Amino acid sequence: MRNPLFSKLLTDLRKIDIAATSLRIEQLFEHEPDRIQRMSVRLPGILLDISKQRLSKKAHQVLLEMLSKSGLLSERARMFEGEVINYTEQRPVLHVALRAQEGDAVAMPQLLAEVLAQRRRMLAFAEEIRSSNNISDVIHVGIGGSDLGPRVALQALSSGTPDGPRVHFLSSMDGHALANVLAIANPKRTLLSIASKSFSTLETRINAASLRLWMQEAGLSEQEIKTRCVALTANTQAALSEGILPEFIFPLWEWVGGRYSLCSSIGLPIALAFGSKVFEQMLAGARAMDQHFLNAPVDLNGPILLAMVDVWNLNVLDLRTHCIVPYHANLARLPAYLQQLEMESNGKARDVDGLPLPYQVAPLVWGEAGTDAQHSFFQWLHQGTQVCPVDFIAVKTASHSYAEHHSQLIANCLAQSAALMKGKSLQQAHAEMMAAGMSAAQADALAGHRAFEGNRPSSVLLLDKLDAWHFGALIALYEHKTFVASLLWGINAFDQWGVELGKNLAADMYLRIRGQAAPKFDPSTESLLQALK
Amino acid sequence: MRNPLFSKLLTDLRKIDIAATSLRIEQLFEHEPDRIQRMSVRLPGILLDISKQRLSKKAHQVLLEMLSKSGLLSERARMFEGEVINYTEQRPVLHVALRAQEGDAVAMPQLLAEVLAQRRRMLAFAEEIRSSNNISDVIHVGIGGSDLGPRVALQALSSGTPDGPRVHFLSSMDGHALANVLAIANPKRTLLSIASKSFSTLETRINAASLRLWMQEAGLSEQEIKTRCVALTANTQAALSEGILPEFIFPLWEWVGGRYSLCSSIGLPIALAFGSKVFEQMLAGARAMDQHFLNAPVDLNGPILLAMVDVWNLNVLDLRTHCIVPYHANLARLPAYLQQLEMESNGKARDVDGLPLPYQVAPLVWGEAGTDAQHSFFQWLHQGTQVCPVDFIAVKTASHSYAEHHSQLIANCLAQSAALMKGKSLQQAHAEMMAAGMSAAQADALAGHRAFEGNRPSSVLLLDKLDAWHFGALIALYEHKTFVASLLWGINAFDQWGVELGKNLAADMYLRIRGQAAPKFDPSTESLLQALK
Repeated sequence: MRNPLFSKLLTDLRKIDIAATSLRIEQLFEHEPDRIQRMSVRLPGILLDISKQRLSKKAHQVLLEMLSKSGLLSERARMFEGEVINYTEQRPVLHVALRAQEGDAVAMPQLLAEVLAQRRRMLAFAEEIRSSNNISDVIHVGIGGSDLGPRVALQALSSGTPDGPRVHFLSSMDGHALANVLAIANPKRTLLSIASKSFSTLETRINAASLRLWMQEAGLSEQEIKTRCVALTANTQAALSEGILPEFIFPLWEWVGGRYSLCSSIGLPIALAFGSKVFEQMLAGARAMDQHFLNAPVDLNGPILLAMVDVWNLNVLDLRTHCIVPYHANLARLPAYLQQLEMESNGKARDVDGLPLPYQVAPLVWGEAGTDAQHSFFQWLHQGTQVCPVDFIAVKTASHSYAEHHSQLIANCLAQSAALMKGKSLQQAHAEMMAAGMSAAQADALAGHRAFEGNRPSSVLLLDKLDAWHFGALIALYEHKTFVASLLWGINAFDQWGVELGKNLAADMYLRIRGQAAPKFDPSTESLLQALK
Repeated sequence: MRNPLFSKLLTDLRKIDIAATSLRIEQLFEHEPDRIQRMSVRLPGILLDISKQRLSKKAHQVLLEMLSKSGLLSERARMFEGEVINYTEQRPVLHVALRAQEGDAVAMPQLLAEVLAQRRRMLAFAEEIRSSNNISDVIHVGIGGSDLGPRVALQALSSGTPDGPRVHFLSSMDGHALANVLAIANPKRTLLSIASKSFSTLETRINAASLRLWMQEAGLSEQEIKTRCVALTANTQAALSEGILPEFIFPLWEWVGGRYSLCSSIGLPIALAFGSKVFEQMLAGARAMDQHFLNAPVDLNGPILLAMVDVWNLNVLDLRTHCIVPYHANLARLPAYLQQLEMESNGKARDVDGLPLPYQVAPLVWGEAGTDAQHSFFQWLHQGTQVCPVDFIAVKTASHSYAEHHSQLIANCLAQSAALMKGKSLQQAHAEMMAAGMSAAQADALAGHRAFEGNRPSSVLLLDKLDAWHFGALIALYEHKTFVASLLWGINAFDQWGVELGKNLAADMYLRIRGQAAPKFDPSTESLLQALK
């Protein structure tokens, strides 16, 4: 089943003579005049600079050679051709088909026709809602892959003018979130967008039921409510039996993973808020990155290079976490999106064959927007005892006219990336304090605290600007990076068996909380159940 | 300077016979009938259960004994007495004084009188604004410690009725954030709350300048603008010279760290949104936890127990990250708050004497609200190759009437904590599939993917409910935990020298971006500057 070359990759990696890593990154720049040329790469709409990673020319070359031979390229082809690459669930993985355009030469013309037809239906519906005057609010009910994508997209594109209805998101079954939304929305003019691939997600069912009740209580008839409920799902049958009207069901397909579903009907809120053109621009940006991933040579291929850096940092340098810092307020929740994308995809302990992995996979992905993060955890990034690689994400051209603000913002972004690499020696810190007029005793006492180890790796992703097209490209870049990394680690990025156990236990726990019969739990849980009474 | 006992603590810790950790947590419950009694502790307003940590009775006892002897208790006393414990900046650390009440027996009666007088002034001002009809919007301008506290508090308390003006937050200098706020607020009816301890924070200065201009452009006179700008700062002089009216300056003090300043005048937006009573309730909750921290015996002391668990997980079990999952939509940003609190406080590589630390400190703190997180990174928590301890935070009594939602939410919270510990063996996974009618071959192929290692540690914090009082108690709990952990690691939690270098480089970077003369940077930065042109 598994390409046997993958399993050898990590073993081979460890054999690389990594002596070069004893050089500091700054020294690598001195020793390698072509470093920028090799490690600063133009992707569709994005400049990717990985030259401040702690990766020598030699290691880079060996890695590229190994990647070319690894079977990665044939697995990439298998994805685009619709072969079964989600082995544990025996499905193809075709989120790239969601971005296809009329006339694209594809392996499966019939599937393309269906995707295009359903996309047209969904976008026509969105335009109809936007041009009608009946809907002031949309409540998008969905969780995980049915929530984070549209939520992050709406924030990302909020500098465009959202001229459609207001969109609210309801994900967890927390009644506090429900109460917050219902305090704002108008029950007589609300559209419910019920998003669940299986149409059986507990949170979504509970929220949808309470929302229907809320509409009823506002005086809407059953028939009126039916004309206000749309389903975004791969389980049309379940939606029909819940009373959703056939014309209000916008399907996705089993071959779209929830966390890869932004470009499917799950993206309806984007079309509702900004219009179908903006949605199509997002698809076009993602498609451009798909084409780049499919066609660019390994040494210039964004997703492959990012995955290579991930594997290098985790498996060779043993850096187990990965920080994402977007210097753009509208990308503030991008780290949460990537956290889901990468950690749910690759947070596995078994390879595709079900055997325990002998090495680490899937770093912890986390982050917050800059410059806020500079006043929060950057202390830890600069001087903490752990080293954590950072992706700095910035845009060249702002969507506003405050030039001074943008210059300062970008200056901070580049300065932080440089500072992490550069550091400041004890001697330098001491000399600076003496020069500033401090006594030698004071300088002695403080020099340690004002010194920075430096040599901490980061990448910079510079987007031309942030619009729907570039947002689509950015998402597709990380989607494909996640896939490539999974191939290098020999795992399946497209299943998520690890969410089962908690779900099963929650069913019994619920019965116990409601005072009904169910098995006893451990003493801690029993004592907490007691405290809840 | 440093209590010599601290430096021995980690060495001693490693000498503990930790053989008991070869037992699974579930086995520890079997071997220790008093486990719940010892490890489930009642704090003010909060039940803390650390019994599902991977900590045997023996290790627990040894740790408690070491803590009692460590000098921790005298350093705790020194904090409350206003001694200098921020050694590198030679300041006392007195955020606990911010929560003091009239008549409290304190070491410094004069300081208490000043704190109370300024609090009264600030709250009277808040009530005046609330009862006037001139102000519809407040824009709170501040970053890091001047931002996250009030921002998180406003979200936490949003189930109460915010009957004051709308509060907007502006932190980073990102012009996109500015544009987003200005699209909503009314320039003729806006109060600017300018929060900066030093009154020199770059982001805050830039935003304040643009906001003043925005008011000018809306036709407000200089004098009118002056009556709409308040300063929350420890640098009264700087605020005065920026033209802030003396009656609109609400001071804090040098002895309040930014990330510990929620209960100072930095909390003004809380009083504006919810009223002075709610602000005082928050202080009362924090004060109750302060008293608990000061007086409770070590083995029942919440902050001390949490710090003990942190040190155990990081320094003995080598678990370098720490996940916070609040099962409450209104605490969604609590992880970001705690991330700042802990990582900026303890993200150091040097001990209080400036010597390099021979051990890890300050785990990476991260998290998202549940149940959302269950559909995101819980796959990684359950089945990933890294083990990460989790704090589950839930409330017993909801602030809404959707009982079904709350039962399901709490069931999920407890189920996840139990599932992380329990796991599921390969044999069990296999047997379940066979029982469900799968073929042996299918079960063989999937058993590995459906097995869970388990034995993953977590704590549960069960709040009685979430109101201002309990929010204050929760924040104070983590504040003191952070302080205790810093003492165990022998570091200073109250400075942040690590933010200097990036700040300095940003100044030069800004000049370069504006085309002005400044030193050259490394080749990567130079190439990025070129791309920005």
